Amino acid sequence: MEFTCRSVHEQTYKVYLDWNIIDRAPEFLEKHDISSALFIISDTNVFKNHGKRFLHALKDYECHTMIVKPGETSKSLLNWKKIQDFLVNQGADRKSTVIAFGGGVVGDLAGFAASTYMRGLGFVQVPTTILSQSDSSIGAKVAVNHPLAKNLIGSFYQPKLILTDPSLLTTLPLREFSAGLGEAIKYGVIADPELFELLYQKMEQILAHDRELLNDIIARCISIKIRVVEEDERESGLRKILNFGHTIGHALEQVTEYKVLRHGEAVAWGMIAAGWIAIQRGMWNAEEFVRLQSIIMRAKCLYPPGEIDPDKILEALKHDKKKSGKSLQFVLPERTGKVTIVKDIEPETVKEAVRMMFKLGASSEAPLSHPTTVRRGGPRLG
Amino acid sequence: MEFTCRSVHEQTYKVYLDWNIIDRAPEFLEKHDISSALFIISDTNVFKNHGKRFLHALKDYECHTMIVKPGETSKSLLNWKKIQDFLVNQGADRKSTVIAFGGGVVGDLAGFAASTYMRGLGFVQVPTTILSQSDSSIGAKVAVNHPLAKNLIGSFYQPKLILTDPSLLTTLPLREFSAGLGEAIKYGVIADPELFELLYQKMEQILAHDRELLNDIIARCISIKIRVVEEDERESGLRKILNFGHTIGHALEQVTEYKVLRHGEAVAWGMIAAGWIAIQRGMWNAEEFVRLQSIIMRAKCLYPPGEIDPDKILEALKHDKKKSGKSLQFVLPERTGKVTIVKDIEPETVKEAVRMMFKLGASSEAPLSHPTTVRRGGPRLG
Repeated sequence: MEFTCRSVHEQTYKVYLDWNIIDRAPEFLEKHDISSALFIISDTNVFKNHGKRFLHALKDYECHTMIVKPGETSKSLLNWKKIQDFLVNQGADRKSTVIAFGGGVVGDLAGFAASTYMRGLGFVQVPTTILSQSDSSIGAKVAVNHPLAKNLIGSFYQPKLILTDPSLLTTLPLREFSAGLGEAIKYGVIADPELFELLYQKMEQILAHDRELLNDIIARCISIKIRVVEEDERESGLRKILNFGHTIGHALEQVTEYKVLRHGEAVAWGMIAAGWIAIQRGMWNAEEFVRLQSIIMRAKCLYPPGEIDPDKILEALKHDKKKSGKSLQFVLPERTGKVTIVKDIEPETVKEAVRMMFKLGASSEAPLSHPTTVRRGGPRLG
Repeated sequence: MEFTCRSVHEQTYKVYLDWNIIDRAPEFLEKHDISSALFIISDTNVFKNHGKRFLHALKDYECHTMIVKPGETSKSLLNWKKIQDFLVNQGADRKSTVIAFGGGVVGDLAGFAASTYMRGLGFVQVPTTILSQSDSSIGAKVAVNHPLAKNLIGSFYQPKLILTDPSLLTTLPLREFSAGLGEAIKYGVIADPELFELLYQKMEQILAHDRELLNDIIARCISIKIRVVEEDERESGLRKILNFGHTIGHALEQVTEYKVLRHGEAVAWGMIAAGWIAIQRGMWNAEEFVRLQSIIMRAKCLYPPGEIDPDKILEALKHDKKKSGKSLQFVLPERTGKVTIVKDIEPETVKEAVRMMFKLGASSEAPLSHPTTVRRGGPRLG
């Protein structure tokens, strides 16, 4: 399956989606006139599971590989600098291509390095997580974190192409897989009632890695993301709808210092809170809200964040938005597949929503979990 | 005087040129909807001479200022990082504007910082040297140096506008002023016989800072630079003609470890060598070559680099071009105002040209000089 994303200034790039497509990587590189040396950036987990296979597919290319640790802490200026050193030491020149082979962290890090080496090398994304395949690999945003804020240092940089292989998702740890579904569910609510229905009807087969279903879900998410960023790459308007579930989600991540929840999990919690606010305002159908809860719980993406005081969430939100007044802005569903931006949400409503969110989520069964730390960083900037 | 530069992807930016134009800066910022906080990056020399005046002009704006040391060593990753910290600590947000108030070093450094903070802040150039006014502020190239290569880390980033004020040139030290003329002379040879004639006829008035002449010369250089980069921003072809004098020039800078010559001085030497090669090949009129020598000598931009073995120059050239075979590529004049790229220059010819260049330049009178170190860095990348 092939998608075209038209970026600002009419530049376009292709997303190629297929099960096992990474085994045919050379075919697509050739199609885009990529024949010089490849500089592959990956993380230890991805490379352990799929590195040999990917390098085998690329055996006729001059390949240089640099592996970083998995996790948000790798999205640092230090690693960015290390990639620059790696590129210069391995003799990368203007014809070289950087390949991001990993999730969102690797994509952002490698993309920012590619965008700044010799004023921009060719860049290819090979995303390996649900989040990166369905969301972060598309839209040309690349960045690293500053100690004081996430994604503070970065640029807009279009890849030459994106190779999306859902077969890579089958080796994801259960918790990672479930968290990724959080973002896919979001796409159903904001723009695709059929995707929402599919997730509702087939969640168990999806969790069992059904090939056709995974292809279909990722394809639908890609279509929506492309549609949104084509209309609004620089986030002046429409792109904001992608933030459904993210208002409370980001606050939750901040309050738990990015150490407890994965991003998709925080978004899942945030969708419950936002859905509840929409119901309170009489904007959305209560039956649909119940279906959303069912999908989220069956996807096992409501990882319990521990005891959290709703006032702390509110404080984080106020801090985040201090420049735009007292009321808070939320993306809320009008109907499944259509959201709208509402700017006059009162702090009391938000507090109540957070309380309800924890209550509604309390019955949720947590997935098998990694014991490891998840994320670290300051407030998120986009 | 107003120029429009159309960048790739049809983005345009304006260059406004006038004597004392910085006193009217707010008028132009308003015209481009710049009303939020300004983050001014400058160097100690420029700020000592013109900082008070510039801040007075901007007194109705919220201004934050960061000053770096003058000279090429400031174009470092470390300073780039310091600017990011400065921006975040002073509360720069997406609406903020970075102003580069200085020469090429400040423009490249501040521009690269602006291009990467929050994926790109508004950027304004206020160039303060002949080189930056006539050349480096235009063309969207921004970068910092890597210990192993100049301009290795950077991007293409268009300013919102450029304010060019030739009155700022009158406080330049004599040697700096003369070196800057090196680049202006280059523009005459590559594209503008009238500019060449003007430089030949009026060099003494130019050195005496004649207001009308300085305006005219800078305006002519800007026009040429815009014409060239509009046709070839990414340097696939035409932009190469800007490298007239730069082949030997860069090699000279490298061999002297960027410590002896200013860039414009190295280019002046390089133009003599290239002119001599053109004469040897019967490509160019000998009388014009003699006029070029006269202009360069009267501009006092042939600063003596000390004893240099022509073999070392050749070695540096070969190293620079090792990937494209044995013959060397030069930009050579066909007639004054028209250059062409010649790819089959033999190493022996180059050695002879270097010997002749030193011989022809030996009679040159060096300008009053700074005793300080000029530049440091590895091979230059663009």
